[in-house]
Amino acid sequence: MAGNSFGTVFRLVTFGESHGPAVGGVLEGCPAGLHLNQEHIRGMMARRKPGTSALVTARNEQDEVQCYSGLENGITTGGPIAFWVYNKDTRSEDYEKLSNVFRPGHADFTYLTKYGITAASGGGRASARETLARVAAGAIAMQLLATAGIQIAAYVHRVADISCDEKYMEAPVNSLVNCHSNALPCPDADAQKHMQEAIEQAAASGDTLGGSIVCVVNGVPAGLGEPVFDKLTARMAQAQMSIQATRYFSWGRGVEATLRKGSENNDAFVNEQGKVSTLTNHAAGSLGGISNGMPLYFEVGFKPVSSIKTEQQTITRAGEPTSVQVTGRHDPCVLPRAVPIVEAMAALVLADLWLLQRLSRIT
Amino acid sequence: MAGNSFGTVFRLVTFGESHGPAVGGVLEGCPAGLHLNQEHIRGMMARRKPGTSALVTARNEQDEVQCYSGLENGITTGGPIAFWVYNKDTRSEDYEKLSNVFRPGHADFTYLTKYGITAASGGGRASARETLARVAAGAIAMQLLATAGIQIAAYVHRVADISCDEKYMEAPVNSLVNCHSNALPCPDADAQKHMQEAIEQAAASGDTLGGSIVCVVNGVPAGLGEPVFDKLTARMAQAQMSIQATRYFSWGRGVEATLRKGSENNDAFVNEQGKVSTLTNHAAGSLGGISNGMPLYFEVGFKPVSSIKTEQQTITRAGEPTSVQVTGRHDPCVLPRAVPIVEAMAALVLADLWLLQRLSRIT
Amino acid sequence: MAGNSFGTVFRLVTFGESHGPAVGGVLEGCPAGLHLNQEHIRGMMARRKPGTSALVTARNEQDEVQCYSGLENGITTGGPIAFWVYNKDTRSEDYEKLSNVFRPGHADFTYLTKYGITAASGGGRASARETLARVAAGAIAMQLLATAGIQIAAYVHRVADISCDEKYMEAPVNSLVNCHSNALPCPDADAQKHMQEAIEQAAASGDTLGGSIVCVVNGVPAGLGEPVFDKLTARMAQAQMSIQATRYFSWGRGVEATLRKGSENNDAFVNEQGKVSTLTNHAAGSLGGISNGMPLYFEVGFKPVSSIKTEQQTITRAGEPTSVQVTGRHDPCVLPRAVPIVEAMAALVLADLWLLQRLSRIT
Amino acid sequence: MAGNSFGTVFRLVTFGESHGPAVGGVLEGCPAGLHLNQEHIRGMMARRKPGTSALVTARNEQDEVQCYSGLENGITTGGPIAFWVYNKDTRSEDYEKLSNVFRPGHADFTYLTKYGITAASGGGRASARETLARVAAGAIAMQLLATAGIQIAAYVHRVADISCDEKYMEAPVNSLVNCHSNALPCPDADAQKHMQEAIEQAAASGDTLGGSIVCVVNGVPAGLGEPVFDKLTARMAQAQMSIQATRYFSWGRGVEATLRKGSENNDAFVNEQGKVSTLTNHAAGSLGGISNGMPLYFEVGFKPVSSIKTEQQTITRAGEPTSVQVTGRHDPCVLPRAVPIVEAMAALVLADLWLLQRLSRIT
Repeated sequence: MAGNSFGTVFRLVTFGESHGPAVGGVLEGCPAGLHLNQEHIRGMMARRKPGTSALVTARNEQDEVQCYSGLENGITTGGPIAFWVYNKDTRSEDYEKLSNVFRPGHADFTYLTKYGITAASGGGRASARETLARVAAGAIAMQLLATAGIQIAAYVHRVADISCDEKYMEAPVNSLVNCHSNALPCPDADAQKHMQEAIEQAAASGDTLGGSIVCVVNGVPAGLGEPVFDKLTARMAQAQMSIQATRYFSWGRGVEATLRKGSENNDAFVNEQGKVSTLTNHAAGSLGGISNGMPLYFEVGFKPVSSIKTEQQTITRAGEPTSVQVTGRHDPCVLPRAVPIVEAMAALVLADLWLLQRLSRIT
Repeated sequence: MAGNSFGTVFRLVTFGESHGPAVGGVLEGCPAGLHLNQEHIRGMMARRKPGTSALVTARNEQDEVQCYSGLENGITTGGPIAFWVYNKDTRSEDYEKLSNVFRPGHADFTYLTKYGITAASGGGRASARETLARVAAGAIAMQLLATAGIQIAAYVHRVADISCDEKYMEAPVNSLVNCHSNALPCPDADAQKHMQEAIEQAAASGDTLGGSIVCVVNGVPAGLGEPVFDKLTARMAQAQMSIQATRYFSWGRGVEATLRKGSENNDAFVNEQGKVSTLTNHAAGSLGGISNGMPLYFEVGFKPVSSIKTEQQTITRAGEPTSVQVTGRHDPCVLPRAVPIVEAMAALVLADLWLLQRLSRIT
Repeated sequence: MAGNSFGTVFRLVTFGESHGPAVGGVLEGCPAGLHLNQEHIRGMMARRKPGTSALVTARNEQDEVQCYSGLENGITTGGPIAFWVYNKDTRSEDYEKLSNVFRPGHADFTYLTKYGITAASGGGRASARETLARVAAGAIAMQLLATAGIQIAAYVHRVADISCDEKYMEAPVNSLVNCHSNALPCPDADAQKHMQEAIEQAAASGDTLGGSIVCVVNGVPAGLGEPVFDKLTARMAQAQMSIQATRYFSWGRGVEATLRKGSENNDAFVNEQGKVSTLTNHAAGSLGGISNGMPLYFEVGFKPVSSIKTEQQTITRAGEPTSVQVTGRHDPCVLPRAVPIVEAMAALVLADLWLLQRLSRIT
Repeated sequence: MAGNSFGTVFRLVTFGESHGPAVGGVLEGCPAGLHLNQEHIRGMMARRKPGTSALVTARNEQDEVQCYSGLENGITTGGPIAFWVYNKDTRSEDYEKLSNVFRPGHADFTYLTKYGITAASGGGRASARETLARVAAGAIAMQLLATAGIQIAAYVHRVADISCDEKYMEAPVNSLVNCHSNALPCPDADAQKHMQEAIEQAAASGDTLGGSIVCVVNGVPAGLGEPVFDKLTARMAQAQMSIQATRYFSWGRGVEATLRKGSENNDAFVNEQGKVSTLTNHAAGSLGGISNGMPLYFEVGFKPVSSIKTEQQTITRAGEPTSVQVTGRHDPCVLPRAVPIVEAMAALVLADLWLLQRLSRIT
């Protein structure tokens, strides 16, 4: 289905190229009766917006997404919700000199090979600009989930080799959201300072950094996730690994869990005042791919941004050796802006599974 | 769609419970004209079969899968290929004493919460026995891919903290398949010996171990993978994380890539006698989620098996505190048998993307 | 997706060729908690079974379908329900002399053109034998719908130019089911007698007849059906027109409605003791493709069976002119056996839409 | 999936309400390399545009659909093609007095029951205005099919009881397109004159008429259509019956075929200079749901428009008896404007099946 759609019953299709006329999406399957908070959507969009700090690309997009269908007086009608923004600040001249070479780490070569044609400028569909549609739809999903008490927050967990304290992986969502007002959203003030310095230093040398984001979800009722192929963990893995530049997805503490013995890793069940709970939460809220009522947490790794200002060896479309410097407006580190994208993808997965869960029993 | 199906145009649905009458699957979308090699299917099945060594569960299943449709004189007709095996050696008595408690680390609680009913014995759909259908279908997918020169091999990369040499991640597939005849398939003889000892030791103490599997794919032409949500990396992540007990999925060298600078991580393009290639392969064969013609490699992490013989704290279905020892026939380490499952899931993803690729251009 | 699957969240895949080892299906998405009545399934199967009267093919199949998964003590678990029957009475010799020619009206030519390979005998996937899987799954769907008070019955409405009284189109389901015990299930005794004679006469002359089936559904709550492309009427049209030999699908009185003026065709709304109802039911229970709480009724037309014993002009696979007489065991009229197939397809559509309806509103 | 999407690999999602801000769609899966002819799209749109003659609604919409993605210099890139028009001439005051009653024959009641909320004015998603997105996408599909030599034309076959000559059902497409320039596109000049008079007469009396459209397709290669549930005939039935106000779908000559004997209805195969052909074309180009290389033709019946100016009995939302006259701008007969919609839906089905056909064989 050509890859631009995500979800089974709560389903998003996105469209638009980074330097085309518009970027947007259509969200199908949002139930009727949800009072959409436009302010919340704008807030989510603002967090991924370029041009907001020295840490991110200087591209100046207003990105005021607007919904053009599926609403009546601000309430969802059950119809598809279409939304888009027009691209304005497209400095295609930055790309003209790049149009003839394959930028290392970029999708120029693979898109051309696959389709025989590519966007004349920008990354086309491969550009991170496409993610604004994910964030807009994800904001709607978050509002839908909020009606069921489900809350989501992500933060920058690591930049290069600077990690924040592991304790935040199991911190409550409402203690994590405060850091979202920072240009580099990280709950560990000390780590954050070092991350920021590292990014600035890399930027100064024309280089880029990678790292990871952790996402925490509270309030997920037991029973979400489908068996076998559509496990909560599997769907979340696809969702997160579909974000540009991702390199790994790990559930709970990931590698650490695989180093434990079974007797160390199993979570003991307890009856906590009538509610089934576990003493530890190594399973990060999922048993057999179905939520068990405990908080979810997972980590997503991002490679360093491929657009670097230093000179790199490559070839032209004609196959001639050449070198290239990618001098457009690009993030030195994708992590700060990727935080709401990770949240958005988490929300899209959970909204879909939350709806599917209604189909489990005859009554 | 209730989670039991995987793929868009090359699509598998699996069915059956570990202790029910039969386990099998239906594979839809396999193109006509493929001469199926039953011996190869049997070989793949044998590699995941229980009861073959001291390292794995003693359950004795013949698991002689048979195809009941979609073939004419051993050649695929384009119709759905149905296959199944009947369950024979189901020692349900092992489970009788467990039927009233929630086994820690298992899906008993989440399935009961979701469906209000669970399999009386065994793990039902959550059991790893379901994976025999994945392996049978994956073997067919591997044969389909072989017609296009695509080859897949996985191996045990790590058991607990014993890792094999990283160089095997980029070794050619035909050098890796030799290790498949070992009960613990690992190309690094030294590491393998230590892994085996560690597993035996854990088993002796009634405990279990986790670790990771690496999978390598050669011969993938450039252009496979769909943009945005169905990236090769994203679909592979879902596929692998849908396997029981998985905890992380990492593309290429995963964490290592996220620690590099952009200038270190980008792969320089070169023209290798008319074929576009890269000097290094940090991208592990994928740019923008679309294959670039270089080998693929990725790692999948598994938690230690949850069924341990030591006593654990838990509660009964009625919520009463109790303790449990899981004394059935269970693997002390899932990794040896999971190798063909990882390969099978890789093949299912690639066969689907290989077919979808035919739809990219008008001619 | 290669055509062998039907439904979105209540989804059936069927498999098997008429003369292959087995025919069956896997039903995914049946909610947990349904007590399956095997007797009812057998009853439905018996109604489509060949060999039961002089009106239908003499092929003797027991067709005792058995469920091999998705049940625990006869109650659905939410897992996929797999079922199959083994083919026994496959008189392939009947087909040997046909294997080299294209039978007129049959799919031999189109399957060979599409796939480059066909079943050596029988119609392969194109055979009506495939419908036994539809009927088994449809029986389960009917039981699911019965828990919500939805009832379905079809009957032979017309054979060639012999029609039964139109009043039965709006008769209650429970008055129609009585005729199901007849070899030719038709509620109008007079018409039935003439139909039977016409079929016998056609059979005697080696010829075949077509006609139509009407299906009535009672107890459908208002709100079933999805807007735009998945209207109740549209999904039902696909479902019914997917049955072998169908030539038309008409909702309500079909042609008659298109001959009326708007003022004659609109149904006036009335408040019937607190329930919204309509004075007439020209809409046959659907407004805008969504059920309005009134009974559904529709008609499905079938062409005469293509397998005739009289000599017909055709060509061989090599393109040589020849003639053919199709002398195997074939129905002189497909209508009697098609009645439960029409009901089954109706039930599959309604079960899917009944489940999807749970997703319409946030609470 | 909430019903707003159509197709498997060539997939359209539509959005927008009749009186909302915009109406449009996103077409996913159009292969790269198609030079889009905007003039052709405009031409198709113009044919369904309101306000063009006395026979249709006076609503004045420019409906200049524009593509906002998926194109580079007018050539498709393989990315999703998004398009929309803003609604301008929305005389909501016409609807104010209707907002409290259930209009007979309309979807007001069923949408309100399903979603608990409805569009304040106009028909929302149930409005025929939604079809402009189908026509835009259908025009793209027609251009794609034209690259393979497939041509589609529909015409008004019947208005009330005035039918055009049956011979046009099997006329070549290029002889039928001439009538498309008429306000009432019908190839039979005599019948057309009477149809036009009948519509004017009905309009004068505040009433409306139904009828049928015939669609002919030439150049379809043998092999299109998938077995069992996704037969060419079945998919076409869903597609056409998803159009507003449709009441029947009949393949070939429909009822007439069901009145014939098998010996009369079968089409004899002949070898026509190396090409397999049939002497007659009663099958209308489909055997077993797969195209056989002969022309396709089918008929779609439409009920009379529900919006009539004469007084009708109904109830208010509160359940009080009342009467209503629907005095907005409405077509007295939907057929003239529905011709391009029928063609568009035919093209969407065929483009999807044409692409799927690429997946039938291994090479």
